[in-house]
This record gives sequence, structure tokens and C-alpha cells, in this order.
Amino acid sequence: MFPDPATNVQVERTIGRLTDRRRSVRRPMVRSTAAVAGPRVGRMIRHTVAFRLHHAPGSAEEQDFLAAARALADVPGVTAFEQLRQTSAKNDFSFGFSMEFADQAAYDAYNDHPVHTAFVADRWVPEVADFLEIDYAPL
Amino acid sequence: MFPDPATNVQVERTIGRLTDRRRSVRRPMVRSTAAVAGPRVGRMIRHTVAFRLHHAPGSAEEQDFLAAARALADVPGVTAFEQLRQTSAKNDFSFGFSMEFADQAAYDAYNDHPVHTAFVADRWVPEVADFLEIDYAPL
Repeated sequence: MFPDPATNVQVERTIGRLTDRRRSVRRPMVRSTAAVAGPRVGRMIRHTVAFRLHHAPGSAEEQDFLAAARALADVPGVTAFEQLRQTSAKNDFSFGFSMEFADQAAYDAYNDHPVHTAFVADRWVPEVADFLEIDYAPL
Repeated sequence: MFPDPATNVQVERTIGRLTDRRRSVRRPMVRSTAAVAGPRVGRMIRHTVAFRLHHAPGSAEEQDFLAAARALADVPGVTAFEQLRQTSAKNDFSFGFSMEFADQAAYDAYNDHPVHTAFVADRWVPEVADFLEIDYAPL
């Protein structure tokens, strides 16, 4: 795809910079939109889902659901997995999950992974009353 | 409020643990819900807002809005400020901002800060077509 070695070097440098950007995502700093230019190869994706369960708040069923969901953290490609409480009164969601993938391929592999598809079928669909998926990439 | 010195020590230990949890928020690990118990004092809040602008994608107006919004990162109490691109096809938002506060008092101070209120009045209200605020705290 890149027969010219010089081009390969450039591509590798670009990917290296993107990797550096990905590593810096969690630093408390402002990232400039001036750095947006460049290919979308290898761009970090933060997958989030805010949701509300059918279960009563504080119930054993709620805790069991959250405990089961922790298995998602072990799916290959999942990093920075977080289970969170949604606290804003401006929406009706109670919880959130957040996880990061190195790139779209890792995200796709997670979506297709049997641990994920089984969790969706066996727990998510019957136990989640409402949800919204929001995915973020560096600007 | 805690006349018994022994109780004070216990409270301080609890707050210390919560502080430790807050520091660990950005580590790529699963946090156990077993650690949820305790007061909600000093709990980190991650404030996020997903939004869509009236401006055309890629327009100078869009870039100007994002550039102006970076002033929010300098409001006292704001940490981990991020401007993000929303990439999921499962919602209609184009961008997101994410920031973290050490506790509710810091979040309240941000909401009331003149830089924030001026940005909301002068830029957010006229230029944002739709948005959803989602706030997360450690579970």
C-alpha cells in the first residue's frame, strides 16, 4: 500500500503521533483542535452508554447486573473500563459504562465478541429500561 | 458535628479513601461497586455534554465556537477538560465536552462563574441546536 519506504516512515510517524495523542487523553489539559488534521487511522474511541434499569435502586438485582457487566472489562481491546453513577437531574439515566478502544477495529471486535453479545442478549435487553450510547474520539 | 475525636478520625479516614478513589478514576481498571458505601463528600463529578451546533460541519463558525469554549477550561475548579467529536450513529450529536470537578462545590462554582454564564448566554444558547448533559460520579 505504501511502496515507498520514505512514505512508510512518514506513516509510522503519523501513527506514532496519534498513539501519543491517545495516551494523553486522560491528562487534565485542553487539546487543541489545531491537531485535528490527519488520517483517522488508529484514533482512540471512548464508548459510553448511559442507562436505567428496570430494577429498584439499591436492589440485589441491580447489584447483580452491575457485577455481571464487569465481565465486559475483560473482553480483548477494552481499556479504561468504568462503571459510573449518573448524577445529573437533566436526564433520566441512573448509571453509565465507559470504555476505550485503540481504534475502530478493536471496537468492532468487542461488539462481535461472544462475551459482549451474550451479555447484551442475556442481561442488557431484559434488564435495561432505557439507554443512550455516546461515543467520543479526540477532536 | 462530630464531638467524639474517634468519630472524627473515622470520618477523615473515609474522606481519605474517597480522595484516593477520585485520584484513581482515570486508571484503566474496573472499580468494584463494593467500595461504594460511605458519604458522598468530596466525590469527583465528571460533567459531560453532547451537542450539535446550528453551524455547518467544518465551517469557520463551528471552529470559532469550539475555540471560544476552550475558555471554560480556565474556570477555577475545572480539570481534565476535553473537547471531543461524537462518533456514534446512534445519536444526533456531533461534539462533546467533558470536564471533572473535585466535588459538588467546585461544580456549583463553575456553574455560577461569569466566564461560564457569559459563554452560555452569548454562544451556547444561540449556536447550539440540541444537547444533553450527562454527569458521572464513581459508582
